[in-house]
Amino acid sequence: MNQVDHPFLALAAPGLAGLTPYQPGKPISELERELGIRDSIKLASNENPLGPSPRVAEAIRAALPELGRYPDGGGYELRAALAAHHGVSPAAITLGNGSNDCLDLVARVFLQPGSESLFSAHAFAVYPISTQAVGATARVAPARDYGHDLDAMAALVNDQTRVVWIANPNNPTGTWVAADALHAFIAGLPATCVVVVDEAYVEYVETPDYPDATRWLDDFPNLIVTRTFSKAHGLAALRVGYAISDPAIADLLNRVRQPFNVNSLAQVAALASLSDADHIARHVAMNRAGLTQLTEGFVRLGLAFIPSVGNFVTVDVGRLAAPINDALLREGCIVRPVANYGLPNHLRITVGLEAENARLLAALEKVLAQ
Amino acid sequence: MNQVDHPFLALAAPGLAGLTPYQPGKPISELERELGIRDSIKLASNENPLGPSPRVAEAIRAALPELGRYPDGGGYELRAALAAHHGVSPAAITLGNGSNDCLDLVARVFLQPGSESLFSAHAFAVYPISTQAVGATARVAPARDYGHDLDAMAALVNDQTRVVWIANPNNPTGTWVAADALHAFIAGLPATCVVVVDEAYVEYVETPDYPDATRWLDDFPNLIVTRTFSKAHGLAALRVGYAISDPAIADLLNRVRQPFNVNSLAQVAALASLSDADHIARHVAMNRAGLTQLTEGFVRLGLAFIPSVGNFVTVDVGRLAAPINDALLREGCIVRPVANYGLPNHLRITVGLEAENARLLAALEKVLAQ
Repeated sequence: MNQVDHPFLALAAPGLAGLTPYQPGKPISELERELGIRDSIKLASNENPLGPSPRVAEAIRAALPELGRYPDGGGYELRAALAAHHGVSPAAITLGNGSNDCLDLVARVFLQPGSESLFSAHAFAVYPISTQAVGATARVAPARDYGHDLDAMAALVNDQTRVVWIANPNNPTGTWVAADALHAFIAGLPATCVVVVDEAYVEYVETPDYPDATRWLDDFPNLIVTRTFSKAHGLAALRVGYAISDPAIADLLNRVRQPFNVNSLAQVAALASLSDADHIARHVAMNRAGLTQLTEGFVRLGLAFIPSVGNFVTVDVGRLAAPINDALLREGCIVRPVANYGLPNHLRITVGLEAENARLLAALEKVLAQ
Repeated sequence: MNQVDHPFLALAAPGLAGLTPYQPGKPISELERELGIRDSIKLASNENPLGPSPRVAEAIRAALPELGRYPDGGGYELRAALAAHHGVSPAAITLGNGSNDCLDLVARVFLQPGSESLFSAHAFAVYPISTQAVGATARVAPARDYGHDLDAMAALVNDQTRVVWIANPNNPTGTWVAADALHAFIAGLPATCVVVVDEAYVEYVETPDYPDATRWLDDFPNLIVTRTFSKAHGLAALRVGYAISDPAIADLLNRVRQPFNVNSLAQVAALASLSDADHIARHVAMNRAGLTQLTEGFVRLGLAFIPSVGNFVTVDVGRLAAPINDALLREGCIVRPVANYGLPNHLRITVGLEAENARLLAALEKVLAQ
C-alpha cells in the first residue's frame, strides 16, 4: 500500500514515519527457537530474578473468580495504599500500565508540535519515543562520564521547553544525580515546564547522597516522580507503574489515561507486593552481592564498566559490542546491546542469580578470547 | 494550584480542560460500602456473568512462575493465533490493552488539531473522548430509531474527516447496521479517511443480515475492525482487544502502541479463551434466553425498549431514569444510566444469569410502582 493510492496514510500524525518503535528484548522462547539453543539465561531486561513476593501468586489466585468483571477503573485500593506508602493524597497518584504509560501520559498532556522536551544523551529510550509520537521536538544534552550533565541540560532549556526528563538512576548507564545538584537544577527551571524524575530503580540505590525526589513534591508544583513495580517488585509481567505529582497535574494525566489501563490482576498483585517489604529487602541484598560479583569479574577480565547503582551494569567490551553479543547469544546468554543509546562498545548486563552471573562471566571470557 | 502561578498547566494540550474522563461503572465493593448494602447484582458493564473458559485460570496458574519477566512485547503467540482465527497475516493485527486502547491508537495516528472524526449520536463514549484527547473535532450525526443513520453520517463527511467510527452492534443502544448498507457506506467514503468498525459485541449477533466486517478487509484498505476479549470471552478484568487492518495501518498503530501494552497473563488468557469456542457458544445461548427473559418482562411492565442484538438491552422507563436508577441501587441492582449518551429516560441493563434477570425485573416493578 502506498501513500499516493491511499492518502489517509500520508495524513497520519507528523512524526510517526520517523518513529522507530521501542525494541523490547526477545522472549526467551522466541530466541531459543531461532538459535536452536536451550536453557539460556536472560540478563537483558533488568528483571528481578527472584520474581515477586509469594503473596502475589496468592492474591492472583484469589482474584481468578472475578475475571469476567472490569477492573476498578479508579484503582481505589491500590491508590489508597500507594498514597499511604508515600504520605500523599490519593489524588496525587496516577496509575500507569507500567511507568512507560505514565511517561506517555506526560508527553500527551504537556507536549505538542512546536514544543520541546529535554533529556540527556544515553537516557531511557521512551523519552524520545513519547516525544516524537506527539510530534514535539526532542533536545538531547551531552552526557558527562555517561551520566546527566545538569549544567549542559540547563543550557538547553528555553521558552518552548515543556518537559524535562531525568532518570535517576539512569537506564542504561546506572549513573545517578546527587540530591543537592538535582534540587538546584529543578529550582532553576522556568515555571513553563514540568520535570519528570523517573525513579524506576530507586529501591536498589544505597548511596547516601541519592535523593528520593518524592520528598520534594511540596517544594515543586511542576515535579512528577514516576515509580514502577517492574523492577525491585518483580512484577514486570503485569505492567504497573505510577506517577506522583501535585493533584492538579494528576488530574490532567488522569483525563488522558485509559480508564482501565491497569488490569485487575495487576492491581491485586501490586497491592500484595507493597505489603511485603522483606521480599524487596532480600532482593536488594542479593542485587548488591551480584553487582560486586559482576564488576569484580569485569576487573578480572580487564574490562571497564560504568559504575552503577541499579540492578544492572553496563560494560565496555573494548570493541564493537554487536559481534560479542551474538557470540554470547550462542552461549545461551541474553544481554542488552546499547548501540541505540549511543554506546556501541557497551553491553548492559542485568544482575542475575549468582549462578547466572558466573555463567555470564565465563561466557564473556570465552567469547572475548575467540 | 492555578494557571496564573503555574503556567505549565495553561500550556497543557488543547482540549484537555474540556475533557470529562470516561466514567467506569463503580466496583461492587465500593458501591456496597457507600450504600451499606450486600449481595448486590451488577448488570451495568455488559460483562459475561459466566466468566471465561475454565482453560483461562489454568493458563494463568501455569504462567505465575514468570511474573518477574516482561511480557512478549510483540505478542508473538497471540497474534499468530488471532491471525489464524481470522485468516489474515499476523502483520494485520494490533494488540490493545482492551479495544479501548486500539481506538485510542487510531485517534493518535489519524487525528490531530484541525482534523475531524465522525460518529453517531448515542455512540460509544470512547469515540468523543479519544477525539478530544488529541485536540481534533468531533462531528456527531443524528441517530435514526436510536441507531446509526448512515445517510446522515455520509452528509457530514468532508475534506477534514480522518476517522469514521461505527459500533456494530452499537453500545449503549444494541442497534446494528445491515451488511449492504454498511458496505455501500464504506465504499462511498473518500480515500482521505479511515473507518473503524467496532465489533465488541459481534459474538452475540444472530441476525442474518449482520456483517462480519473482517470479511471486507481486502475490499477496503482504509478499514479497521476492532474486537475485544472483554465481552463474550469473559475477560474484562484482563484488558485484551485487537484491531485488524491492512498491515500498513497496523504498522502505524504499532508505532504508537506501548511495547508492553498487553500484560503476560492477559496474553495467555486470551490464547486459552480463543481455544474454547464451546464456552462462547454456551454463553451466547444463555444470553439469547436472558435477552428474551428481560424483554418479555419489560413488555409485561409496559416499558418500551430498544431492540438489541447484544448482551444488554436499553429500556425506556417512561420518565427521568436517574431516580429509578437510585432506587434500583437501594434494591441492590446496579445498572447503567445513559443520560450522558443523550438518553435521559433510559437505563442500559446487561443480560445476567436467569436469577439476576428475574431479580432485576422484580426490583424494577417495585420501584416503578413507588
